Amino acid sequence: MAGATLSLDNPIFAQFLFYAGVVLIKTCLMSLLTARYRHKNKAFLTDEDCQSLKRRTGVDVKPSKNDPDVERVRGCHQNDLENVIPFVLLGLLYSLTDPNPWYAKMHFRIFTVARLFHSVAYLYPLPQPSRALGWFLGYIITLSMGVSVVRAGVM
Amino acid sequence: MAGATLSLDNPIFAQFLFYAGVVLIKTCLMSLLTARYRHKNKAFLTDEDCQSLKRRTGVDVKPSKNDPDVERVRGCHQNDLENVIPFVLLGLLYSLTDPNPWYAKMHFRIFTVARLFHSVAYLYPLPQPSRALGWFLGYIITLSMGVSVVRAGVM
Amino acid sequence: MAGATLSLDNPIFAQFLFYAGVVLIKTCLMSLLTARYRHKNKAFLTDEDCQSLKRRTGVDVKPSKNDPDVERVRGCHQNDLENVIPFVLLGLLYSLTDPNPWYAKMHFRIFTVARLFHSVAYLYPLPQPSRALGWFLGYIITLSMGVSVVRAGVM
Repeated sequence: MAGATLSLDNPIFAQFLFYAGVVLIKTCLMSLLTARYRHKNKAFLTDEDCQSLKRRTGVDVKPSKNDPDVERVRGCHQNDLENVIPFVLLGLLYSLTDPNPWYAKMHFRIFTVARLFHSVAYLYPLPQPSRALGWFLGYIITLSMGVSVVRAGVM
Repeated sequence: MAGATLSLDNPIFAQFLFYAGVVLIKTCLMSLLTARYRHKNKAFLTDEDCQSLKRRTGVDVKPSKNDPDVERVRGCHQNDLENVIPFVLLGLLYSLTDPNPWYAKMHFRIFTVARLFHSVAYLYPLPQPSRALGWFLGYIITLSMGVSVVRAGVM
Repeated sequence: MAGATLSLDNPIFAQFLFYAGVVLIKTCLMSLLTARYRHKNKAFLTDEDCQSLKRRTGVDVKPSKNDPDVERVRGCHQNDLENVIPFVLLGLLYSLTDPNPWYAKMHFRIFTVARLFHSVAYLYPLPQPSRALGWFLGYIITLSMGVSVVRAGVM
């Protein structure tokens, strides 16, 4: 019998699709939030952005890399890149390793909830260890899937 | 009947392969451009890089994180990581959701052209809102595919 | 006859799974190393992290973005994001392009060894051009797969 493939006929992969879509969209929304704070706080990265502001409003600012609001959103975005992208890549490969369906679903769900909580904890911000806890839960899920992937692969 | 799979027999995925390859290669080329400016402007990140320059040329410099040319290329590279990687991941999953073929092709093409334009606008640099427009076009394509992926997935 | 699919029945993909898992886990381990140096050197990124340290130990520090140990690990992690993620994405697509099996295996193996060596060279650090060599080997592997992917795709 043929093994699992990456298609919607694979019920584990059909679930993965939903959760991967949610965490990737969440990651992309960080760009929009960065843009919002850059405009609100007039904290732009490049000369041409400052010139555009001056043409439109007459306000004259220098490029800035140290606005606290912008840097916080960027820190959250960077943490998503470091954690969500490996989750999606390993989760996709993990969907092919014939995992227990309930166990697989729990992996996807816990990761998604943990990362949504991580973003709230980072952006609000909530006192530590809130953010650390959200990060850690997502991290062990990703490593757990990584171990399954390496064990299913051929050296 | 079985659904679409990730193989070259899936015509939407065969097209995705081309465009995903192009935007990923474009992203990787940013590394080479960073390296070129680091050498040209002698703006290295680490002590061992500065020591290597000294051994080879006798020129003595300190590590630098503020060279404008290097920082511009790095900003462009980072923006690619934030946008191209989610596009490739969501586009791969989107190829399985049985989209309208013409609509799918337009998604892939518009994203690719928009990101090539974004890089030119960032590196040249063109006056704003050139770069913002390139970014925004790619961004709504990615979100559009993300919505299709989440809707096709199982919660 | 149907073409190659992304499943463990595709022997090239079964090998890819192993190497992709290894390099992704390696990338994720950089987070743990960053956290370790942040705690050891008391170099935290946010106010809430500093407040948490103060509550637990009474030590009062300001957020810091310039700790050399932390910045070195973060540089290594960022380089992994810039190189390992494109390798995994292009390698996955490359597994579908019906490459010569021995040639494909060499791609995956050389990339993995080169990136492990790159991390050692970056973190130890070894004198240049050690790190540059590790980076370059992985880079040409990724570009080689990228060219195969673009040629197999449909424009």
